[in-house]
Formats: sequence, C-alpha cells, structure tokens
Amino acid sequence: MTIELWHCHNTRSLRALWALEEMQLDYKLHYLPFPPRVLAKDYLAINPLGTVPFMQVGDTQLTESSAILLYLATHYSQHAIAVASSHKEYGHYLNWLFQSDATLTFPQTLLLRYSQFEPAERQNPQVVQDYKIWFLSRLKSANQQLLQQAYLVDNRFTIADIAVGYALYLGELLGLASAYQPQTLAYLKRLKDRPAFQRCVNAGEEVANYKIEPLTV
Amino acid sequence: MTIELWHCHNTRSLRALWALEEMQLDYKLHYLPFPPRVLAKDYLAINPLGTVPFMQVGDTQLTESSAILLYLATHYSQHAIAVASSHKEYGHYLNWLFQSDATLTFPQTLLLRYSQFEPAERQNPQVVQDYKIWFLSRLKSANQQLLQQAYLVDNRFTIADIAVGYALYLGELLGLASAYQPQTLAYLKRLKDRPAFQRCVNAGEEVANYKIEPLTV
Repeated sequence: MTIELWHCHNTRSLRALWALEEMQLDYKLHYLPFPPRVLAKDYLAINPLGTVPFMQVGDTQLTESSAILLYLATHYSQHAIAVASSHKEYGHYLNWLFQSDATLTFPQTLLLRYSQFEPAERQNPQVVQDYKIWFLSRLKSANQQLLQQAYLVDNRFTIADIAVGYALYLGELLGLASAYQPQTLAYLKRLKDRPAFQRCVNAGEEVANYKIEPLTV
Repeated sequence: MTIELWHCHNTRSLRALWALEEMQLDYKLHYLPFPPRVLAKDYLAINPLGTVPFMQVGDTQLTESSAILLYLATHYSQHAIAVASSHKEYGHYLNWLFQSDATLTFPQTLLLRYSQFEPAERQNPQVVQDYKIWFLSRLKSANQQLLQQAYLVDNRFTIADIAVGYALYLGELLGLASAYQPQTLAYLKRLKDRPAFQRCVNAGEEVANYKIEPLTV
C-alpha cells in the first residue's frame, strides 16, 4: 500500500517523515505552506481539520504525529525502532510517545502562536513565559532518563526518540536549548546527526513561507 | 501485579479509573487534592512531575492518561475494549487515543488555567476564548464519525471512547455542551450512563478542594 504524507517544514509532520526515513519505507510526500488551512484551502478536502501531519495508508488516515509513529512501528515491526508489547519497557515506551505531544509539543505551539504567529496586538508574553516554564519543567523525566542511558527506551534508538527528539529540536529553534541539561543537549545532537534526520530536516523549506524565530521573552 | 493509581477528582486520571472499572480489574486507588504538587508535596517523591494520573504496575510507571488506557488494553486484552494491531481500524484507534489528549484535553487545561485556577490578575479571557474555539473546532472528526456509528472504532465501545469521552465530559463541566452537535451530545449521555462510569465519576470528590466552574466568556 502506498504511504502518502502531507508535510510542512519544521512542523510536527517532521516526526512522521523522520520515521519513514529511518525505516527506509517508500512514500509519497506532499509539501504545504503553513498554515495550510489558510494558504492551501484545497487541502481541507483531504484533511477537513486542516492540520499537519496527515497520512494516508490504504483506508487508514492519521492526523496525530505520535500516533503515526506508533502505527508505522507496529505495522512494519521488522524494523528495529519499535518496542514489542511483550517488552518489559513497553509501558514506558507508550508513555514517552504520548508525553511527546500532549505534554511537550502542545505547550510549544502556544509559544509559537503567542510570540510570532498571531498579529502583534494578539501576542501574549505572559502565556509565552508560562508555557516556556512548563515545557522546560516537563523535560524532567527525559533529563533523568538520559543521565542513565543514551536513549529513552531499551537503551537503543526507537520511535520514542523521534517523538521526544522532535520536541527538543523545536525547542532549539525557539531558542530554548541554552536551558537544556548537558545530557539532553548531547542527546539532541546525537539525534540530529543521524543520516535519516539529515535527509529530511530541510524537506519543504522551499515552499515554507515562515521561519521559526527564537523567543525574546 | 498490583495496579496502583493516584487520582484527583474530575481530572484526566478519570480516564484511567474508568478503564479499570470497565475492565473490572483489581486496583489500589490513592486520592489527592488538586494541584497535588502544591497541596500534597509528599507526592513528588512518588511522581516527580507532580501531575496526575500516576500509575504503577510492577516496575512500570505511567503519567499520561491515554498511554495508560493503551497499556491496560494491550496487557489485559482478553477484555473487549481493546482493538488488536491486526484490526483494519487500528490506525484510527491510535489516532483517537492521541487526539484525545494532545488535541482535545490540552486546550481544555488552558480554559481551566486562565479562567479559574490562576489568580484574577493572571486570568486571560483572550486565551480562554481562543482555545474554546480550538476545542470545539477539533471535535469535527468525532462529530462526523458519530453521525455514522454509535462509537468511535469498530462500532463498539473501546478505550478510544473513554479517551475522547473524558474530553467531552470535561467540556460539559466547562459549560460547552450546549455547543456540541446532537449526535455528540447523545454519545456523551450514552457514555455517562455506563455503570462503570457511574461507579467512579465521584471518586475523590470528598478530598477535592476545587470545583470546575462553567466558563463565563
């Protein structure tokens, strides 16, 4: 079955794209400007929510970036980046996958929205500051784990690292990496050095009509 | 293995508790006031993040409510509320689980924070309004699905319904149910009528020191 992915540069769809590259799967990639629901209205006929990522595999449609990771890892589990449900760290694996988006990246979208995507009169330094603190404090679990091991689960690279690694990468684009702990910074560098990440990190840059700026508050 | 759950009344830990009741599993329940990181500082020795839910099963510790649902459903899959990875709707099942928290409930926490948990001078009607609109617009997928079927996946009750149903229930507490579509309102009523939900919805109310108020903006 053909895998199709709709992607905007540097958004959460990078999680899905990075996994496809790590797994060396064939896929068809569609680039979109951001936000697509405003700048690519035809896209609403494909994904009525207007969000990215959007992935179509046969009759299966997915809109949640970390769900896509788990779906791909489960369905193509001959690849070494999944963790089996019988594995003793399976619960932790699931917890990182859910934490990556609900607890780490959603707060980051508030930083983006209220520091740069909204017009000046709707920007909101208080909310930006509140969720900058929130994001950094919620890295506590990753900071602790990375003191013990090089990766989050089973001491090897898995999709949990893609999920959390994307949040750390987006945090770096937002200028927050100077507040990361040393082991977390080293982990992010290790992830960014992976050939699969290098192959896809710039995908869609030429049609992107925005650039994420570091925070000034 | 003993299952232990730390719970605050009406918070996301209700997802975990509801699943335990549906699955008729034995568990030990700990009640906490909200927010526990302020009002139950001993709890930080158990869960350093200070968040609820927190679940301990043997060596496995989980902090993400929808991850707990998937963990329980996968490990106790003799129960009928799981969806197997070989099922044709498995991708949709995962998508609902991730959407329930990252896309639906996180925005709801902004409504709570900036309409009632923060002191008056830090409350923020603009953010409350922005994410009220966000939450209601992101119900589009559920609204469409519920026009076709009585439940979200495989036309039967699964943990996806617990995950999304909690978000709809919290929205009702926030006074948003009047904006729900009729099929979504009927679905919420169907979920709330379940004996397992009825058995646990009031758990912890006596130690709760807050009450969720309907929004006024």
